[in-house]
Amino acid sequence: MNFDEEFQKRKAEAEEIVCRYLPDEKEVPGKLTEAMNYSMLAGGKRIRPVLMLESYRMCGGDAAVVEPFMAAIEMIHTHSLVHDDLPAIDDDEFRRGKKTTHAAFGAALGVLAGDALLNYAYETAMTAFDCCQDPAKVARALRVLAQKTGIGGMLGGQSVDVENEKNGVFQLERKTIDYIYVNKTAALLEAPLMIGAILAGADEKTVSAMQEIGHRAGLAFQIADDVLDVTSTLEELGKPIGSDEKNNKTTYVTLMGVEGAREEAERLTREAVELLASMDGEHEFLKELLLFMADRRK
Amino acid sequence: MNFDEEFQKRKAEAEEIVCRYLPDEKEVPGKLTEAMNYSMLAGGKRIRPVLMLESYRMCGGDAAVVEPFMAAIEMIHTHSLVHDDLPAIDDDEFRRGKKTTHAAFGAALGVLAGDALLNYAYETAMTAFDCCQDPAKVARALRVLAQKTGIGGMLGGQSVDVENEKNGVFQLERKTIDYIYVNKTAALLEAPLMIGAILAGADEKTVSAMQEIGHRAGLAFQIADDVLDVTSTLEELGKPIGSDEKNNKTTYVTLMGVEGAREEAERLTREAVELLASMDGEHEFLKELLLFMADRRK
Repeated sequence: MNFDEEFQKRKAEAEEIVCRYLPDEKEVPGKLTEAMNYSMLAGGKRIRPVLMLESYRMCGGDAAVVEPFMAAIEMIHTHSLVHDDLPAIDDDEFRRGKKTTHAAFGAALGVLAGDALLNYAYETAMTAFDCCQDPAKVARALRVLAQKTGIGGMLGGQSVDVENEKNGVFQLERKTIDYIYVNKTAALLEAPLMIGAILAGADEKTVSAMQEIGHRAGLAFQIADDVLDVTSTLEELGKPIGSDEKNNKTTYVTLMGVEGAREEAERLTREAVELLASMDGEHEFLKELLLFMADRRK
Repeated sequence: MNFDEEFQKRKAEAEEIVCRYLPDEKEVPGKLTEAMNYSMLAGGKRIRPVLMLESYRMCGGDAAVVEPFMAAIEMIHTHSLVHDDLPAIDDDEFRRGKKTTHAAFGAALGVLAGDALLNYAYETAMTAFDCCQDPAKVARALRVLAQKTGIGGMLGGQSVDVENEKNGVFQLERKTIDYIYVNKTAALLEAPLMIGAILAGADEKTVSAMQEIGHRAGLAFQIADDVLDVTSTLEELGKPIGSDEKNNKTTYVTLMGVEGAREEAERLTREAVELLASMDGEHEFLKELLLFMADRRK
């Protein structure tokens, strides 16, 4: 398999679906929807909707019910980027070489466009009730989405990370780092894999295996970020390199060195891939995607 | 009826229900849930959950399914206050005589606690699937909640209001003011009345009448705010008075004078009360509450 080619194909497919669910810019006077769409169209690998569609198809799904959820998870991910970049949090002016939402539209619209993306994610996902015979499946998928986004997931992890930074605490215990990575990063990678399986009508064992795969791949993904922060060039990373080191921030690299961190990411990915191999359904691309998430040098 | 006494009784009942759904402060390390609960417990009239429970009972509801939705609508309202108060938007240090969330916990937690309240509202409302035989009813209520909160409701109205302020545009056309009031304020008063009716299994005509009542009462509520801004004392209002006048901001009072604005609020309330009178079910208190919302001098 030519992974790059296959990934570009799937990314384009996911992007086409996500874009169909963006809000109409004429719906609200002023720039709110323009700011939402600006941030949604600012690039990105669309890994979460791609993961959801792969999981859905692997579990036998072949209907449109997954599409609003694909858009929803990308909106939630984008919401988190828009708010992370705010002056009140990371105060970043650029992301992926483009002005961040608050830099382009002002801090007030940065707050409100982020809020509106989070809310529109739920509005969008709830349209799945219209195209599904089984409302219990949609309800279950919605609850996983909300739970993995909230205080027991992404927002919980993000708040612990931000609080430590704002308090000038950069030397973190291993268990705090793990808490942050598990919640801030892994939760929103578990969600699409679980939701794909749920919407396809998979059994509990499969949904739970998807959660495990997302958990390990999510940790590996974040550890790979730590490695990239010290090994990448500015051009490759698209954001300032060495920012963790400069802040003297504890990462997996400071805990176990570059090679140790790489090995940890590999170990986690191997476990995810083994679990995947034990499951039914076509998953060759999904396996390659898990390997890519843990080693984005290639 | 002694309205004050009845209102206090219902407010206490709503507050007890809302508080049962607040997040456990031990669930997340750090101060995220503490900041969420701080803002939820900072006072307020709990009008939205009270409206929901009145509508639910009037339409014959008598089960617990309404309770998570009562908590959810109060969380969404509180989310909007927390974010309105942020330095990036209104930059208010005090609300109801207490420090605002960002003033007490820092701007970063102000953003994140607001986000977490919005998300937790959906997590909470979705628990209604556990206590309801009819998932379609819960799904419909969730969709109304999300729609009235989002770009076609509260967040849409709020963004137009904030954009005009940030652009130094305080002289607004009547249609812009109406757009802001209808969406920023009325939408989140329509929602509880509609959701109460939906969860009680009311017919479409009743749900639609509830929307109309909420729409008129919501506009009257906001116009009453314009009146209070020029007629109230600092002590009565609990926030700086005359702030609209100082900003030379167009309100219903600048459009039609204090008496004209009062009459408009009365007219809208009369229509709402007439609609209510044409409906089945016990609604004596709800009628008094609509009258109170339009004239909070008493």
